[in-house]
Amino acid sequence: MPRAVREQQMLDAAVAGFARHGYQAASMDDIAEAAGVSKPLVYLYLKSKEELFSSCIRREGDSLHEAVRLGAGVSGPADQQLWNGLRAFFAHTSAHPDGWAVLSRARTQGEPFASMVASLRTRLTDLVTELLAQAAQDAGCDEELADREVSGLAHALVGAAESLAGWSNSRQEDRPSAKETAAVLMNFSWTGLGALVKGERWRPTR
Amino acid sequence: MPRAVREQQMLDAAVAGFARHGYQAASMDDIAEAAGVSKPLVYLYLKSKEELFSSCIRREGDSLHEAVRLGAGVSGPADQQLWNGLRAFFAHTSAHPDGWAVLSRARTQGEPFASMVASLRTRLTDLVTELLAQAAQDAGCDEELADREVSGLAHALVGAAESLAGWSNSRQEDRPSAKETAAVLMNFSWTGLGALVKGERWRPTR
Repeated sequence: MPRAVREQQMLDAAVAGFARHGYQAASMDDIAEAAGVSKPLVYLYLKSKEELFSSCIRREGDSLHEAVRLGAGVSGPADQQLWNGLRAFFAHTSAHPDGWAVLSRARTQGEPFASMVASLRTRLTDLVTELLAQAAQDAGCDEELADREVSGLAHALVGAAESLAGWSNSRQEDRPSAKETAAVLMNFSWTGLGALVKGERWRPTR
Repeated sequence: MPRAVREQQMLDAAVAGFARHGYQAASMDDIAEAAGVSKPLVYLYLKSKEELFSSCIRREGDSLHEAVRLGAGVSGPADQQLWNGLRAFFAHTSAHPDGWAVLSRARTQGEPFASMVASLRTRLTDLVTELLAQAAQDAGCDEELADREVSGLAHALVGAAESLAGWSNSRQEDRPSAKETAAVLMNFSWTGLGALVKGERWRPTR
C-alpha cells in the first residue's frame, strides 16, 4: 500500500481518536490499532503525537477552508455567495463532526495548535470580509461602513458561525440540517446587514 | 495588611502577567515582584501556578458576568435590555483588556481552565437566550422561533460578541468605543432578529 494512502488512514484514525478523547488522553496505541498499523509505523510516518495532532489540524482545517472557498466562489451576488459559503461551512462541520471537534479542541490545547487554528480563522475572516465589502459596495453604501464596520461584522459573523457549528453538532435530538443552521445565521446577519447598508440603525427607545 | 487585600494585589499582578506572557511563560517571580510580596507568600496564599491562574479566571469571569447581568437587568423592553447587556459586556472587556486576555487565553490552555471558561460562556448564553425568548414573545412570534431558533441565535450572538471583543481590543488605531462595538453587534443582530420575528426571511434569489 502506498505511503500516502497509509498516512491518510492513520490521520483518519487519529482525527477520530483525538475528537473522542482529546489531545492528552488519546492513545497512540489505539490510533495505530484503529488504522490497522503498528505503532512504530505511525511514529516513522508522523514523527510524534504533536506532529500527528498538527497534521490532523492542518488536514481538517485545509479541507474546511477549501469547502467554504469553493462554496462561496460560485459567481453571483455577494449575498448568494455568502449563503453558499455558510451552507458549505455547516455542511462540512456537520459531515465531519470529528474534524470540527479536532479544530475546536486544538484551539484549547496551547501552542503550536492554537496558532494553527487562529490562522485558519484569519483566512475565513478575510474571505467573509471580502464578501461583505463587495455586498456593501453593491448596495452603494458609504465608505465608512465599507471599512471599519465591515471588519467588525466579518469578525462577528465568523465567531457566530463557530459558535453555531458547536451548538448544532452538540444537539442530541432535533438536530438542525446544515441548511437550517446556515439559514439561522443568514437571517441573523443578512437581514441586519441589509438594513445596515440601507442606512437603518437600531436605536434605543430611551 | 489584611490577607484579602494582599490576595487581590497578587491577583492583579497575576492577571497582568498572564495576559502579557501567557500561562506557560508567565513567571511566578515576576508576579510576586509586581505584587510587592515574596514568592513563598504567593504560594502560601494561592497554592500553585495552576491555582493562581484558576483564581484569575474565576475572578475575571465572575466580574464580567456580573457586569453583564447588572447591565441587562435594568427593567425595560427586551431589546433595550440586550443593548444594555452588550454595552456592559464591551465596556468590561475594553476596560479590563488583561482580564479579557486571560479569559481568551484560558480557553486555549487545556483543562481545568477550558471548562471554567466554557461554564462562563454557558451562563452568558443562558442570559441571552432568556432575553431573546422574551423579545420573541413580546413580538408575538410563533412558538417554533421561541424555541430552537432562539437557542441558535443566542449561541450566534455570544460567539459574535466574543469575536468582536478580541477584534476591538486588538485594533491598534481607530479603536472603537464599547458603545460603537455594541452598536455593530446590535445592528447585526437586532435588525435581523426584528425582521425574523416579523416573519421576514432571507431567501436566495436563485
